[in-house]
Amino acid sequence: MGWKAKEEKLDGGRERCFELSVENRRVPGVYWSPKKTSERLVLLGHGGTTHKKADYMLGIAKMFLKKGFSVMAIDGPGHGDRDEVGLSENPEKFEEAWISGGGTDGIVADWSAALDFIEEEEAVRPTGWWGLSMGTMMGLPVVANDTRIKVALLGLMGNWGPDADLLVKLAPKVTCPVRFLVQWDDEVVPRNACLDLFDKLGSKKKTLHANPGLHSSIPQFEVVASVDYLDRFVA
Amino acid sequence: MGWKAKEEKLDGGRERCFELSVENRRVPGVYWSPKKTSERLVLLGHGGTTHKKADYMLGIAKMFLKKGFSVMAIDGPGHGDRDEVGLSENPEKFEEAWISGGGTDGIVADWSAALDFIEEEEAVRPTGWWGLSMGTMMGLPVVANDTRIKVALLGLMGNWGPDADLLVKLAPKVTCPVRFLVQWDDEVVPRNACLDLFDKLGSKKKTLHANPGLHSSIPQFEVVASVDYLDRFVA
Repeated sequence: MGWKAKEEKLDGGRERCFELSVENRRVPGVYWSPKKTSERLVLLGHGGTTHKKADYMLGIAKMFLKKGFSVMAIDGPGHGDRDEVGLSENPEKFEEAWISGGGTDGIVADWSAALDFIEEEEAVRPTGWWGLSMGTMMGLPVVANDTRIKVALLGLMGNWGPDADLLVKLAPKVTCPVRFLVQWDDEVVPRNACLDLFDKLGSKKKTLHANPGLHSSIPQFEVVASVDYLDRFVA
Repeated sequence: MGWKAKEEKLDGGRERCFELSVENRRVPGVYWSPKKTSERLVLLGHGGTTHKKADYMLGIAKMFLKKGFSVMAIDGPGHGDRDEVGLSENPEKFEEAWISGGGTDGIVADWSAALDFIEEEEAVRPTGWWGLSMGTMMGLPVVANDTRIKVALLGLMGNWGPDADLLVKLAPKVTCPVRFLVQWDDEVVPRNACLDLFDKLGSKKKTLHANPGLHSSIPQFEVVASVDYLDRFVA
């Protein structure tokens, strides 16, 4: 358990994978660090049916590396290297994968253990969260419980899905600044379910940004602005 | 009719007032131009019970002057120099003032005439609209009808008030890029009425930004960002 030997490059930064054992679960993770050493860290929560190193995750990671952030991601319940139901080839198995992977139950412990590991290995850092859709299903419980996370980019999620009740229950416990993204024509998570979850967030500083389009069609300017947002708040 | 003789300074820029006659109405206006000549113009729509030179309007005007914009504003129906019911001392007379001043009926003609005048006197310019609350009650009809306006900052308004039906009817005719501000705890224009009006805007590029707080408590960062938004889009 710990770092894997193989090291790769991402846009001039280092990419190292690790694996931890948390309770009875394997927790496979990846850590990217920029060319210039940084004290700022962002945790990336991937979307449903994808994984910690999906193409769009690499794209976001590169944007943070350019800002001088280090970036950490782990595979969510039943996803990526923890996929045991063939999710990657059968995206309709999302709920099955999520639930059989432990759902929200193990999420806080998994991410906290991964953050402990990185903090011990690298340096203590002010930390932000970036995660949409399932990245918010993971991020909201983590941000609500782990006070090391100082700001969060959440969204594309609502009072919806297998752990809807838990999300709604935990939302008031989120107190750090949050930017919350909504796709106005979301065909996966209904708009009103998203607005409802934003409403319930406990943060005094919370901002909702909504744009026309389907679930996965966030405008690029909003993605760029979301990285800038964490850049301003993780200090 | 035309420019008034008296000229003042605003943050180093020039402030000149004018008065036009449109149909049977007096249209009193103000025009601020920056130190350095600019080809970009923004129209400022003031809020209910205020007027074209209210303190917060001067504040917004200064922000645009600093970006090199020229700025124009006129008094809305029954407001400012067109106040005939004592609105400035009796803010509860808002609807009475609005309706007796002609309501939405004369708004497009008034603003178009003022824009004609400025274009003729100064220069043809790419033009944006900035107006919240009653500034949107005026701005939405103007933007829907006057194709010279290329981008708009709207908000704090919804399917609400004396001309609610007209706003809803005109919203689909707005097709330029729009940023729309919502105050999540708006005690004047209910949140859902605002979300409904945003929904009906015809623009493909529209973004909603919502923040906690009452009607008049827009966070300063959002005001600054609204000026930056027009700065990027009026080109």
